[in-house]
Amino acid sequence: MVNEKKKAEASLKSLHRIFTVPEAPHSTLGTIEQAISQNLNRFLQDHIIATDYSLTEIEKDFSDANVPEQPSFVSDHTEFLLEKLVAQSVHTSSPRFIGHMTSALPYFLMPLSKIMIALNQNTVKIETSKAFTPLERQVLGMLHNLIYQRDKPFYDNWMHSAEHSLGAFCSGGTIANITALWVARNEALKANADFKGVAEEGLFRAIKHYGYDDLAIIVSERGHYSLKKSADVLGIGRESLIAVPTDEHNRIRIDKLEETVETLKAKNIKPFALVGVAGTTETGNIDPLNAMADIAEREGMHFHVDAAWGGASLLSNNQRPKLNGIERADSVTIDAHKQMYVPMGAGMVIFKDPSLVSAIEHHADYILRKGSKDLGSHTLEGSRGGMAMLLFASLNIIGRQGYELLIDQSVEKANYFANLIAEQPDFELISEPELCLLTYRYVPEDVRRAFAIATPDQKDAIHKRLNDLTVFIQKRQREAGQNFVSRTTLTPNYLDRRSTHVFRVVLANPLTTKAILQDVLDEQRDIAKQSTLAYPELMAMTRRILG
Amino acid sequence: MVNEKKKAEASLKSLHRIFTVPEAPHSTLGTIEQAISQNLNRFLQDHIIATDYSLTEIEKDFSDANVPEQPSFVSDHTEFLLEKLVAQSVHTSSPRFIGHMTSALPYFLMPLSKIMIALNQNTVKIETSKAFTPLERQVLGMLHNLIYQRDKPFYDNWMHSAEHSLGAFCSGGTIANITALWVARNEALKANADFKGVAEEGLFRAIKHYGYDDLAIIVSERGHYSLKKSADVLGIGRESLIAVPTDEHNRIRIDKLEETVETLKAKNIKPFALVGVAGTTETGNIDPLNAMADIAEREGMHFHVDAAWGGASLLSNNQRPKLNGIERADSVTIDAHKQMYVPMGAGMVIFKDPSLVSAIEHHADYILRKGSKDLGSHTLEGSRGGMAMLLFASLNIIGRQGYELLIDQSVEKANYFANLIAEQPDFELISEPELCLLTYRYVPEDVRRAFAIATPDQKDAIHKRLNDLTVFIQKRQREAGQNFVSRTTLTPNYLDRRSTHVFRVVLANPLTTKAILQDVLDEQRDIAKQSTLAYPELMAMTRRILG
Repeated sequence: MVNEKKKAEASLKSLHRIFTVPEAPHSTLGTIEQAISQNLNRFLQDHIIATDYSLTEIEKDFSDANVPEQPSFVSDHTEFLLEKLVAQSVHTSSPRFIGHMTSALPYFLMPLSKIMIALNQNTVKIETSKAFTPLERQVLGMLHNLIYQRDKPFYDNWMHSAEHSLGAFCSGGTIANITALWVARNEALKANADFKGVAEEGLFRAIKHYGYDDLAIIVSERGHYSLKKSADVLGIGRESLIAVPTDEHNRIRIDKLEETVETLKAKNIKPFALVGVAGTTETGNIDPLNAMADIAEREGMHFHVDAAWGGASLLSNNQRPKLNGIERADSVTIDAHKQMYVPMGAGMVIFKDPSLVSAIEHHADYILRKGSKDLGSHTLEGSRGGMAMLLFASLNIIGRQGYELLIDQSVEKANYFANLIAEQPDFELISEPELCLLTYRYVPEDVRRAFAIATPDQKDAIHKRLNDLTVFIQKRQREAGQNFVSRTTLTPNYLDRRSTHVFRVVLANPLTTKAILQDVLDEQRDIAKQSTLAYPELMAMTRRILG
Repeated sequence: MVNEKKKAEASLKSLHRIFTVPEAPHSTLGTIEQAISQNLNRFLQDHIIATDYSLTEIEKDFSDANVPEQPSFVSDHTEFLLEKLVAQSVHTSSPRFIGHMTSALPYFLMPLSKIMIALNQNTVKIETSKAFTPLERQVLGMLHNLIYQRDKPFYDNWMHSAEHSLGAFCSGGTIANITALWVARNEALKANADFKGVAEEGLFRAIKHYGYDDLAIIVSERGHYSLKKSADVLGIGRESLIAVPTDEHNRIRIDKLEETVETLKAKNIKPFALVGVAGTTETGNIDPLNAMADIAEREGMHFHVDAAWGGASLLSNNQRPKLNGIERADSVTIDAHKQMYVPMGAGMVIFKDPSLVSAIEHHADYILRKGSKDLGSHTLEGSRGGMAMLLFASLNIIGRQGYELLIDQSVEKANYFANLIAEQPDFELISEPELCLLTYRYVPEDVRRAFAIATPDQKDAIHKRLNDLTVFIQKRQREAGQNFVSRTTLTPNYLDRRSTHVFRVVLANPLTTKAILQDVLDEQRDIAKQSTLAYPELMAMTRRILG
């Protein structure tokens, strides 16, 4: 019994040690940190996307649902992580990883992120964040300024005001969109007369009180899937997210938008929010924001712009005009972990009017007391870390002009790639880049000629095989691990709105070279011919049609 | 013009460099990293909570809403951060910082978090996370196992199943609670006959279809404020979060709960969810979960347990019995960034039934395709980082037995402090610790004697002054920067449910010593006497009453 107690005390002592600051720079932890850095540098320099282990094989290393009873040495566990996790993860910062918006990171963020992790501030309240609160408010101010360009007195008045907020930092674009639409819903159904507002009384009583037959949110058919999720969460219903058709450039059709508004009004359905897309996730196109703002103003709709991806382009004075009208939005979503090059978890929603957030304000006794500057009184999330710090550092270290260069060259590179694709006899550009995103597919030259003269039935058959071929190429290329493009489905007008699988490319990594882009196409062409189903079938059809 | 172009090219080249892996260990970034580590170690060793700069002064350093035009050197900006941010932040891991749940971190997480930041995986989909996806699924499995203790075949079947999920990782307890209640709402109002379900059709049509007059969520009056926020976001309305009175131990009163259910049913209001609290934020008490589960089962309510804080105690076999009944919950919220000692941003919701998440499933063309193992198809958030990795590492390195020791000693320390407070003639324990959280206040000995014999009016007057004194002491102590306790408001039965300000203490930091606890009381006693308003007034009243 005495021995047991002594053993427990010894264990506790060694547990205390892990919470104590390691004193010597050459401590065990210091050595482990060096080993990690070297391993990571090696991994990141290898420039290979993934290993050839299948997911099923990897799952075997992560299959035990028991929390281990006994402790492990940090060094042993680090070895496990490096071998089983790091080596089997995706090299998202490779210049050959051009399929998603998850971006390469500037290396100065590695040492700086140490500050964020070690201080472990909780920005929900001043008591656990102190200087991180003014810092976050300043970052939100900078983003507000980037969008709305108000004068100095405006920011002097509102940036640090306890009762106001220029926006909210959050984990990502989805939470940002939900927050914006939550504000919009609560504003549209606010307290009046004896009705205490939707926040207090709920949607059922709110809609009855206002006498509507239902609510709706309007967005183009290219809107991000998070908007459907928002409509579900907020109790609006996915069906009430009304998708308006787009033109040949994937932008919302204003005539169809007007029709939609009229139809809804005729049915006594209140469209309380209109969402403009500034950089669609699938094609990178930007809605006609000014024309949308006109309609939103006229109809009393909250105008939200989902610029999760495209918003970073405001940092370039050369790209800025493409987003004209964004300064008329009531709220804007921007993800800094996309083209602002900071790590995952840096979403933001910015509000034009600093008092708009009062629609979602809440307080509690032990924190978020009225009059405090606690950020948590107007965010969807509660406890949150100090991620704003990394955006703050990047904005300062890269500077606006630095971002301008990075963003401009990504657009130039996308234009270069679009031209390169258009020049190939066997590739087809599906959507031209407006910013640094484009889509295309592989169509053998003969197939293209055959398609042009085929009967409608033959066209359908060819189209189906081309879709199969696109899926085959994308999967096989991803598995080969040299290059990575993503894949989506579009309905191009010139293909009679047939559901069309396409390759999708985002050229945000500054290190992606022209040689890499050429290599991506060459590899896809090679892979196509390895298809034992779609390719031979396509060729047989083509021969029959061309005779 | 040529010169301009050359200059831009040179700038671009230097921008490229920041995305390139630094080659030498003695590179500039390496040196900066060392400087940061040393500075952080100094700051964290100083064991002082905050500096004496006021928030207003700090705000001056964060007041410019312009994104700087020109870039800065990393070294210069780092200096700014160390001086203006780090030095003005809150030392949340100090053993004297015992006011909040934001915890101290084991130091092995510093090097390991480097892996998370550098790899920058996006766990929304396999394509950007690979091994991080099985890892996260395993962590969710471990937590599920901790709560529900199912057998190996269960986890073999469901842990890595594409169509199922044992839970969702998220940024924190608020998102976890919203997710759980979102699932509950969608299950309660699911598709039937020609109705497509609330997710598709929205709340208004759902409630009409089901023929209810309204919905409700039931929780004790000690429920976390995020539940009100959830009720608002989900369209239920804050008023429809029904607060049931608690007993003298801050636990929901089962008799009152039964009454509440009856009253709601009589009004044709559907209580679709019952929330048990396992560790209230303000007093740390645990609801009678088994009795609640009985009622939830009988009434067909979704039973959610908010164990954001208390859930970690399941890692101790000695504390586990206090949470009996949690294994009957349909869903459970646990925050690993509380007593599992990982950095901010590690919330989780765990579901008993692996197919329950289908209530909130969603898909998109370019990601989250049906049949994929993408985690993003059943989370509220979209893009997310690899935070699960740090919990995985901590569970492995500390081990269950290590956590048991940490958690048990925190409870012992709370009991020690409760006894210490009870022994003081001039302190009053308000709520006893059930886990490692307790509340108390300062009441001079004479005041206590006077209160006992005072008239009701005199009691009110004394009570008001004591409240003022509590606020004064807590603020002044925080500002002095040596020790930190938080403050909340309770309505203790023995004080006739008067609104009572109290000190709130969370003893999660393993390095907090008995000497520190004594010091906290001594300092509070000293500060009390410095009050130029509440203290002299209290004393004057006391003299009048005692004669």
